[in-house]
Amino acid sequence: MKVRIGIEGFAIDSAHYTLSSPGNAQLHGHTYVISVEIEGQVDPSSGFVMDFEILRKTVSEVVKEWDHKLIVPAKDIDKIRVEAPFQMEIKKINAPFATAEYIGTEIAKEVYQRLGNKYKVNIKIYEGKDSYAEIDYP
Amino acid sequence: MKVRIGIEGFAIDSAHYTLSSPGNAQLHGHTYVISVEIEGQVDPSSGFVMDFEILRKTVSEVVKEWDHKLIVPAKDIDKIRVEAPFQMEIKKINAPFATAEYIGTEIAKEVYQRLGNKYKVNIKIYEGKDSYAEIDYP
Amino acid sequence: MKVRIGIEGFAIDSAHYTLSSPGNAQLHGHTYVISVEIEGQVDPSSGFVMDFEILRKTVSEVVKEWDHKLIVPAKDIDKIRVEAPFQMEIKKINAPFATAEYIGTEIAKEVYQRLGNKYKVNIKIYEGKDSYAEIDYP
Repeated sequence: MKVRIGIEGFAIDSAHYTLSSPGNAQLHGHTYVISVEIEGQVDPSSGFVMDFEILRKTVSEVVKEWDHKLIVPAKDIDKIRVEAPFQMEIKKINAPFATAEYIGTEIAKEVYQRLGNKYKVNIKIYEGKDSYAEIDYP
Repeated sequence: MKVRIGIEGFAIDSAHYTLSSPGNAQLHGHTYVISVEIEGQVDPSSGFVMDFEILRKTVSEVVKEWDHKLIVPAKDIDKIRVEAPFQMEIKKINAPFATAEYIGTEIAKEVYQRLGNKYKVNIKIYEGKDSYAEIDYP
Repeated sequence: MKVRIGIEGFAIDSAHYTLSSPGNAQLHGHTYVISVEIEGQVDPSSGFVMDFEILRKTVSEVVKEWDHKLIVPAKDIDKIRVEAPFQMEIKKINAPFATAEYIGTEIAKEVYQRLGNKYKVNIKIYEGKDSYAEIDYP
């Protein structure tokens, strides 16, 4: 029997823009709120699909890389130059746009890989208070 | 890869009755809280399954028709006559009962049709604080 | 068309330990927060998959048996002896560990059986504030 385990309460506070959406070409940001599920068998030698602590540690490591960044699609990287008194670290996303759909897919892929390509991963990522994308990976 | 996008936070404050349920033949009402998901492919020319704004506008238009109404099954329409100082607009539902199951199904169908019959729609509709029906349409 | 109905807001305040997890061999407890979904057809003679009240009553009866107990795997039952001024009722679980995965599976099975083995049951059980297991039974 398949069981899913999930952890909630992750957030990344990052800046982005979406050239394909009217009004969102303007640089802005979100507290993206993220939850993660994995699906697997319960291991009878532990009682777990996976120890929550291990899943939480793995997701934390992935998510940290996306936090407090300006998320920029690969194709735009060379077009951005900023001189300013603040810090602005860029996180490149290998996708045409830094939308919730693509950010969520990248995070799902990274969690999937760090867990050894063994568990189906589901990511729910809120962009704003009540809009989200949900990705089953792979 | 299939991705779902969802929007939350819709509500309709409507009256209904359910003749099939003891205690619910009494006219009463609910704040039905509604969320909507659609499933589709991410369009690489936009980064979206669908712009959240478009989905939100579509769902708002559908939901508005059900708000602040008395929801009445088609078969009962001719049996109701009210004289009173308040307004009482009736919303006919083409189903035998105005239950969360059927209201949700109707809303799902209307969202599905307004979006061009192209996206699988999931509706979650709360009747009361912690009871809900969830419909995958079609 | 399949419809799911769900009810939320159940909780059991019970003690457990998990010998397979470092740090959790220590006796401790949780407010396990539980929600339940069943899947079925909408009955046109009632408008319901099942009356929420009936589902709520059934789940309440199942959950009550797990509340305010020390949940102990069958294999450990004979190894526990306590003399103390408090009451300590043991709830035996027929699984190797009293993890959220197994507790949720047992509760799902009991709800499934009390409903006549007719409805697919989904249980979501939180262990702590933001970690959960989710079981589809059977």
